[in-house]
Amino acid sequence: MKKENGIMEGVKLGQVKFNDQGLVPVVAQDRDGRVLMLAYANLEALRLTLATGRAHYYSRSRQQLWRKGESSGNEQVIEAVLVDCDQDTILYRVRQSGPACHTGNPTCFFRRLET
Amino acid sequence: MKKENGIMEGVKLGQVKFNDQGLVPVVAQDRDGRVLMLAYANLEALRLTLATGRAHYYSRSRQQLWRKGESSGNEQVIEAVLVDCDQDTILYRVRQSGPACHTGNPTCFFRRLET
Repeated sequence: MKKENGIMEGVKLGQVKFNDQGLVPVVAQDRDGRVLMLAYANLEALRLTLATGRAHYYSRSRQQLWRKGESSGNEQVIEAVLVDCDQDTILYRVRQSGPACHTGNPTCFFRRLET
Repeated sequence: MKKENGIMEGVKLGQVKFNDQGLVPVVAQDRDGRVLMLAYANLEALRLTLATGRAHYYSRSRQQLWRKGESSGNEQVIEAVLVDCDQDTILYRVRQSGPACHTGNPTCFFRRLET
């Protein structure tokens, strides 16, 4: 495996382990290291993300493929797509246009958990 | 809701939406913004994380509660526990001791996805 910017290459799309609904969780993170959101992708969403350089997901509630920003305009331009050690989680590194969260917050993680 | 360091407070443990297995995905991120791993937590794991200041998870494969570092020593000291807008994903901000990944890599996300 080659190294590029310290990141080993080498996981093929076919090696990703989807859950029993055919989905894999995807964490999106911006250039400043901010964790923006967590959503899910199916094989087609990952394929489109890699092919177009724009973040695609699969909406569990709407049961359809979804390109981030297709209605809001707040798209995510892909800088890297990484896979974890177990091949069952994906990380999109993105340049986020506008707020990532539908609430208008820059990130979906804007509240603390309390007992 | 009060603001502290730009983060609104206010989600109670009882408001977290667990999936049908009683779990919620948890993203762990270090102080440098690095995404370390994704794992799952049940209510008890979240409760222990908040109570002890050490990251706890629930292992789906071993079907048991798990404190990160309990065998490896590579524990995660909690700096903040955040909840997303839908209350169905958690973000642990941590100080990571040693590598987060069982492969010895600093993060579980050390490979690129390729078509």
